[in-house]
Amino acid sequence: MAGFVRELTDRSFAIEYAVASLDFPWRMTNETLDLASAEGRLLSERVVSPEDFPPFDRSTRDGYALSSEDSYGASASNPAFLTVCGEVPMGSLPSFSVKTGECALIHTGGVLPAGADAVIMLENSERAGKWLEIRKAVQMGENIVFRGEEFASGSVLLEKGAPVDFRSAGILSAAGVASVRVFQIKVGILSTGDEIVPCETPALHPGQFRDANAYILSSLMRRHGLQPVYYGICGDSRKALEAALHHALEECSVVLISGGSSVSARDLCSTLLESLPAPGLLVRGILMSPGKPTLIAGMKAERKLVMGLPGHPFSCYLAAYTVLLPLVHAMHTGKTVSPWKTVFLPTAESVFGHSGIEEFLPCRLSEGKALPLPMKSSFAKAVGSADGLIRLPASRETVRPEEEVEIWLW
Amino acid sequence: MAGFVRELTDRSFAIEYAVASLDFPWRMTNETLDLASAEGRLLSERVVSPEDFPPFDRSTRDGYALSSEDSYGASASNPAFLTVCGEVPMGSLPSFSVKTGECALIHTGGVLPAGADAVIMLENSERAGKWLEIRKAVQMGENIVFRGEEFASGSVLLEKGAPVDFRSAGILSAAGVASVRVFQIKVGILSTGDEIVPCETPALHPGQFRDANAYILSSLMRRHGLQPVYYGICGDSRKALEAALHHALEECSVVLISGGSSVSARDLCSTLLESLPAPGLLVRGILMSPGKPTLIAGMKAERKLVMGLPGHPFSCYLAAYTVLLPLVHAMHTGKTVSPWKTVFLPTAESVFGHSGIEEFLPCRLSEGKALPLPMKSSFAKAVGSADGLIRLPASRETVRPEEEVEIWLW
Repeated sequence: MAGFVRELTDRSFAIEYAVASLDFPWRMTNETLDLASAEGRLLSERVVSPEDFPPFDRSTRDGYALSSEDSYGASASNPAFLTVCGEVPMGSLPSFSVKTGECALIHTGGVLPAGADAVIMLENSERAGKWLEIRKAVQMGENIVFRGEEFASGSVLLEKGAPVDFRSAGILSAAGVASVRVFQIKVGILSTGDEIVPCETPALHPGQFRDANAYILSSLMRRHGLQPVYYGICGDSRKALEAALHHALEECSVVLISGGSSVSARDLCSTLLESLPAPGLLVRGILMSPGKPTLIAGMKAERKLVMGLPGHPFSCYLAAYTVLLPLVHAMHTGKTVSPWKTVFLPTAESVFGHSGIEEFLPCRLSEGKALPLPMKSSFAKAVGSADGLIRLPASRETVRPEEEVEIWLW
Repeated sequence: MAGFVRELTDRSFAIEYAVASLDFPWRMTNETLDLASAEGRLLSERVVSPEDFPPFDRSTRDGYALSSEDSYGASASNPAFLTVCGEVPMGSLPSFSVKTGECALIHTGGVLPAGADAVIMLENSERAGKWLEIRKAVQMGENIVFRGEEFASGSVLLEKGAPVDFRSAGILSAAGVASVRVFQIKVGILSTGDEIVPCETPALHPGQFRDANAYILSSLMRRHGLQPVYYGICGDSRKALEAALHHALEECSVVLISGGSSVSARDLCSTLLESLPAPGLLVRGILMSPGKPTLIAGMKAERKLVMGLPGHPFSCYLAAYTVLLPLVHAMHTGKTVSPWKTVFLPTAESVFGHSGIEEFLPCRLSEGKALPLPMKSSFAKAVGSADGLIRLPASRETVRPEEEVEIWLW
């Protein structure tokens, strides 16, 4: 029984143990989407360039294409003179070539004409009718990007598991990759607890709580490229919870049961997860604060991951962020890479921790320092304005102002 | 004529100048959406709590509710004994009160019964039938969150302009704010240049480029809560560009013209922006690298912002990120708050800059250090794997390994 957790597992070990027991990576469902529809999703296969990019030698500057040899020795006091033989049109091949003693007007992105091997910038030359005065020597390749220099045909543009977002949009669209294969990882979200009512409930009866966890989890899942499916709220009845879990397991690869707060509700959840096919319940409680009453379970043959998450919204959020996200990453890639970035910065205020347990608290970045946000009285406000989490490893107690703390930025 | 930019403006000054000239903030269109649909959007008004949260005094632990006075002096060697008078049901009001010498079983989230003012944790007590042995004194308020302690009715939950995302989902749904008013800021995206072809074009003719900027900008706009509208590709014809711009201006508050690379295309764009109603073209070129050929224009009476962005995808991306995003933020809030987080970290490798110009280059975070990503040969790959940008102010040239650099994290 996990209600009163007695067997806490170290977080990193819990993740590794689940990855090994469930034999990650799994083959996951995927689908082909055009770039706009794929936004925010995760690539289910590495993307390889179908062609050289740029597809031709091109100028990176506005200037004149020339043979670099013709500029050798040129300087402001001893300029060279070339004949302007034409202008490179944008969007098509120049119909002429550049001969010794000649140059051609070229714009940024223009195709380098035959005979030219460099571009002199407008700033370093002076046009006078048919003549161009050159005041600086240029080297072969100067102000040019050669065909395939950005990436060659067949080279890897993005790895499997990478998100399709504002960062990868450029490389995909430039290479003409107009559609991509992305994972379809449905995450079922199931809220439990007799005290939980839908978020839309206008007035609460004493003792009731709105289902904040469903929104937090849905939003977090979408943010990380997963597809949340909400299965509503279950009372503290084994029969109802069992039916809802099985329904969710039919449709989803991952099911999250955000726990009722009571001991009996948590016992109910852990008893249910124990009854799952092998390996069943793997981790009952994690040595972290908040987030202790986190359960990890799974079915290897059926390829399903099930987690019991704490009822308190911040604990639920934290368990999903620090345990579920690395697990799902390992589920499709085999690697337990974290989705957050870690930095070490001085803290602006004291952080009070306890030794023997890994602790997290929300923080803001302010003037290059970490500003811990008070949690006790208002987790929701703290999280709403946080830039990330301060992590105190189990070995660390109080941290004084100006001492460095580990920060996970989201 | 901005094609060959001669009048470069400092980036910060350019933003301030535009904000002042256009008389930001503007009243922007907004709409009411339910929480799930509003995800990623920006609040158009501050959100105030409709009620106290939590709506009742509740336990933050599994344990027993009691009057703290009954525990005074209790210790493991000298325990106190109380009678268990009942169990607080989850989701409703306890029907009993706790009298002197009594206690009641309570679960996390349970309503504190009348007569009780503290909760003793399960770990610090031992149940034997009707009796509870108490091994530790508890103080008034211990393990309790009082009504309104997270936030009181009428208090500000989120400020105007804040995004609806995984961080704010918790506070909004817990407070029962099931729908919110969000800005509807349409950003028209217009690509120009005879050499630009749609991203879907399978094989390029020499000199052609796919319209990567439209995807980069759309994705970046959505990521920051704005609504991109794509108006396609315009050749280098004044008439066509003018018609497309006017069409976009009818429907959008912001229009981005991602520039043709040639001098003539850029001249065309700046001539067009000069012809707009007052104040028209405000900034023709910014003292930053990349991103120099950035134009800022606007129409004050009509409340329209127009920007000419560079043609090179990284320059375009950077101008949108470092200039457009702060401008849009000021447009709806009046404040030029940046959407990125700034940290100072040692660089793992040398960064070569030039004095006299603000420079940006993509970087990754690796073991607490900034790892600059080589840009020359592959901007697209560099951006695709970057965690943010290194910023070298105009006064900074080369930075040696282990020296701190300014990093803008996205």
